[in-house]
Amino acid sequence: MTKKMKQGLLFVVSAPSGTGKTTLCRAMTRIFPGLHYSISHTTRQQRPGDEDGRDYHFTSPQEFQQMIDRSEFMEWAEIYGHRYGTSRAVVEKVLAEGRDVILDIDGQGAKQIREKKLPGAFIFVLPPSLEELERRLSNRRTERKADREDRLGKAKAEMAEAYWYDYLIVNDELEKAQEQLQAVILAGHCRRERMSEFVDEILTAK
Amino acid sequence: MTKKMKQGLLFVVSAPSGTGKTTLCRAMTRIFPGLHYSISHTTRQQRPGDEDGRDYHFTSPQEFQQMIDRSEFMEWAEIYGHRYGTSRAVVEKVLAEGRDVILDIDGQGAKQIREKKLPGAFIFVLPPSLEELERRLSNRRTERKADREDRLGKAKAEMAEAYWYDYLIVNDELEKAQEQLQAVILAGHCRRERMSEFVDEILTAK
Repeated sequence: MTKKMKQGLLFVVSAPSGTGKTTLCRAMTRIFPGLHYSISHTTRQQRPGDEDGRDYHFTSPQEFQQMIDRSEFMEWAEIYGHRYGTSRAVVEKVLAEGRDVILDIDGQGAKQIREKKLPGAFIFVLPPSLEELERRLSNRRTERKADREDRLGKAKAEMAEAYWYDYLIVNDELEKAQEQLQAVILAGHCRRERMSEFVDEILTAK
Repeated sequence: MTKKMKQGLLFVVSAPSGTGKTTLCRAMTRIFPGLHYSISHTTRQQRPGDEDGRDYHFTSPQEFQQMIDRSEFMEWAEIYGHRYGTSRAVVEKVLAEGRDVILDIDGQGAKQIREKKLPGAFIFVLPPSLEELERRLSNRRTERKADREDRLGKAKAEMAEAYWYDYLIVNDELEKAQEQLQAVILAGHCRRERMSEFVDEILTAK
C-alpha cells in the first residue's frame, strides 16, 4: 500500500515584542527536528548580533518592493516603519514535502495567512502581565526608551488581536510555555481532518 | 483581583475493545494529578480481577433501570447485552470544581455527551491495523473465541464512528500514544475560548 504524502502543517505564532516568541519558536525546531522555522525578509537595519539568513533575510527597500510586485510574499506587513514578509515559495515547498512550518509573524501578517485556510493553527503568546512585559522590555539594552514606551502602547493594541487566534499561551515560565506550544503542535497532528485517511485505510484493508 | 473559577474540561475517549484505551486513560491520571477518571456503572458481571468502585460501579439491572428513570445518567448505552452509564452528578460536580474529567466510553454514549456541547474534546483511539487488534484480542485469556470474533466484527463498526471525533490517536507504541493524548489535554487548556478571559484581564488591568 503506497501512502499519500501528507502536506505539512503551518503554525503561525504572534506576540507583542518582549514576550519571548522567538525563543519559543526556536525551541520547537529543537524538539521537532523536521519543523522548518521560516526566516522573514525585512527592510530594517541589521543590528549588532543579527545574522543575515539566520535572524532575517536583510533586504533593501527597493528589492522588497520588487518582491511585492512579483507577488512573492505569502504575507507582508509594515511595522514601526519597516517591512517584513514571508516568502511564499519557501513555505509552499516545505509544506509540500510534508514538513511543518512555524511562522513567527505579527497580527497583520497572520490575518493574511488565515484567509488562505491552510491546515495548522494560529497561536498567540501573551506576557503574564503588562508590568512584566514592561520590565522585560526595559532590560533590552539595544532599544531606546522612546521606542520601548512606544512598543508597550503598541503591545496592548497587538494583544487585542489575540481574540481570533486558535490558541493563547501565557509565557510566564519558559519551560511551561514550551510544553504548551509543543502540545499544540503535537495535537495538530492528531486532528480528525488529518487522521481520517488512516481510518479509511484500516477499514478498507483486505 | 479575584479570579473566577474556571469549569474543568471534559475529555471523552472511545476505542474498540483491545485498543488500550483504558491503559491510556489511567496513564493520564498519573500525568495530570487533578484529572478525574470517571468510573462507569455497569450491569455486567464482575470478572476476576475487577474491583467494584475502581473498574466499575457494579450495579444490578433493577438499580440501573431506576437510575435511568431518575435521569441520573449523563449518558448510557447497551453493549453486548450489558448496560453502561455515567453518573451525571459526579461529573458535573468535578467539572464545577475546576477539575478535568476523562470519560472512557463507547461511541453511543459519546454521541449523547456531544449534544451537551461541554467544553473539552472527543478522542478516538485506533489500533495500528485490524490484524494487530485481532492479535491483541487473542491474547485475552478471559474471553471466549466466539466473543473475540464478535468483537472484531463490532470493532470495525465502532471505528466507523471515528470520523466525527475531534482527535484520532493510533495506539501503535503506548508511549507515543500517551504523549499524544497528553498533548490533546494540554492543548485543550490553551484554546482561545478558555483563555480569552485572561486577555480581558491583561488589557483592563489598572
